[in-house]
Amino acid sequence: MKEIQLEYVLPGNIEKRSFEIIREELRERGIWLPADQDPVTRRVIHTTADFDYAETMTYSPDALDTAYRVLRSGGDIVTDTNMTRSGINKKFLRTLGGEVHCFMAEPDVAAEAKERGVTRATVSMERASKLTKPLIVAVGNAPTALVSLHEIMENTGWRPELIIGVPVGFVNVVPAKELILRSGVPCIINRGRKGGSNVAAAICNALLYQIRDGKVPERK
Amino acid sequence: MKEIQLEYVLPGNIEKRSFEIIREELRERGIWLPADQDPVTRRVIHTTADFDYAETMTYSPDALDTAYRVLRSGGDIVTDTNMTRSGINKKFLRTLGGEVHCFMAEPDVAAEAKERGVTRATVSMERASKLTKPLIVAVGNAPTALVSLHEIMENTGWRPELIIGVPVGFVNVVPAKELILRSGVPCIINRGRKGGSNVAAAICNALLYQIRDGKVPERK
Repeated sequence: MKEIQLEYVLPGNIEKRSFEIIREELRERGIWLPADQDPVTRRVIHTTADFDYAETMTYSPDALDTAYRVLRSGGDIVTDTNMTRSGINKKFLRTLGGEVHCFMAEPDVAAEAKERGVTRATVSMERASKLTKPLIVAVGNAPTALVSLHEIMENTGWRPELIIGVPVGFVNVVPAKELILRSGVPCIINRGRKGGSNVAAAICNALLYQIRDGKVPERK
Repeated sequence: MKEIQLEYVLPGNIEKRSFEIIREELRERGIWLPADQDPVTRRVIHTTADFDYAETMTYSPDALDTAYRVLRSGGDIVTDTNMTRSGINKKFLRTLGGEVHCFMAEPDVAAEAKERGVTRATVSMERASKLTKPLIVAVGNAPTALVSLHEIMENTGWRPELIIGVPVGFVNVVPAKELILRSGVPCIINRGRKGGSNVAAAICNALLYQIRDGKVPERK
């Protein structure tokens, strides 16, 4: 039986080593990510060990500048699952003045959705649209959240500053993402079926860590 | 420009429709999952939209029987991330008498790890080994947690009832999973680099839902 070999890497260096491996393997695949997208897409690959994301992650031209501006100015993040909220580095976000909301799991949201015969995602997105701070909406689970968001934007003219649209699944996930891509709102989308709560959190954290690590020059 | 088509599926039927699509596409790929593993592996594919899992999910022969016995008897689940804890259906688990622990995020675990120069995963697994209830350890993130678990089992003879080992990543993830596969402890492992906190939660929920939905015959 083949012996099992563990590589000795200092705990603090595992993430660094992982990101190097991802960089090397992207190179072997002949994939060069645009410099500004690279830290975000690579963190998604780090979170999933899935190189497909290198080909499907899609950024509107203004998405990253918008993300950094919103986060630096103390903007909030709205998620569609507690898992994404749980995965976001809320401690660092708080130092910037921001916080994470997840309306989906609040009991009165479930009650209102039931009463009106709509999904909890719809009610959640309506609540998000009532917030007055600059907002990033990060959807990692429910395509319905993106569809509702799109409807609210069409009907009211309200828009979040940025949409992170990476729900996962088999029913309406692909068209829901296309709706957002065509909306004109700055967005980071993973085209296709893949995504997830972990992917949404990874994207938020990649943006936060770029700021934390001084990789994003301050705007004059 | 091609029109965007949304499929109309009643909110309550989206999951059912998704599972049907997965079944159809597995068939098209010529993959038949063993009947007992099918609901678990299909839920993982539902969570990731990644059919690779159909080929890499690995169950020890006693894994599923053990899982159902432990959960039914009020056993607890220990996770290595708050994201997995957050994703598990704790409400249904409670009706069986179980709860979810995640020691990793407790402040004194971080302090102890720092003082002893070990990882938080190591300290967390030590704490898990002190629990007296039947236990499922579900690791979706840190390969170190599996390595530490293996060491504790070797050194003390203590063992959890079941190990769900689906960490994701590029450093020591593959060998850490092989260590567990060879340990003789009932286990559900995703071989290779892929996995994640969401995958660990999906596996726990698949097991819980089989019980909830009366799909697992009671043992006489």
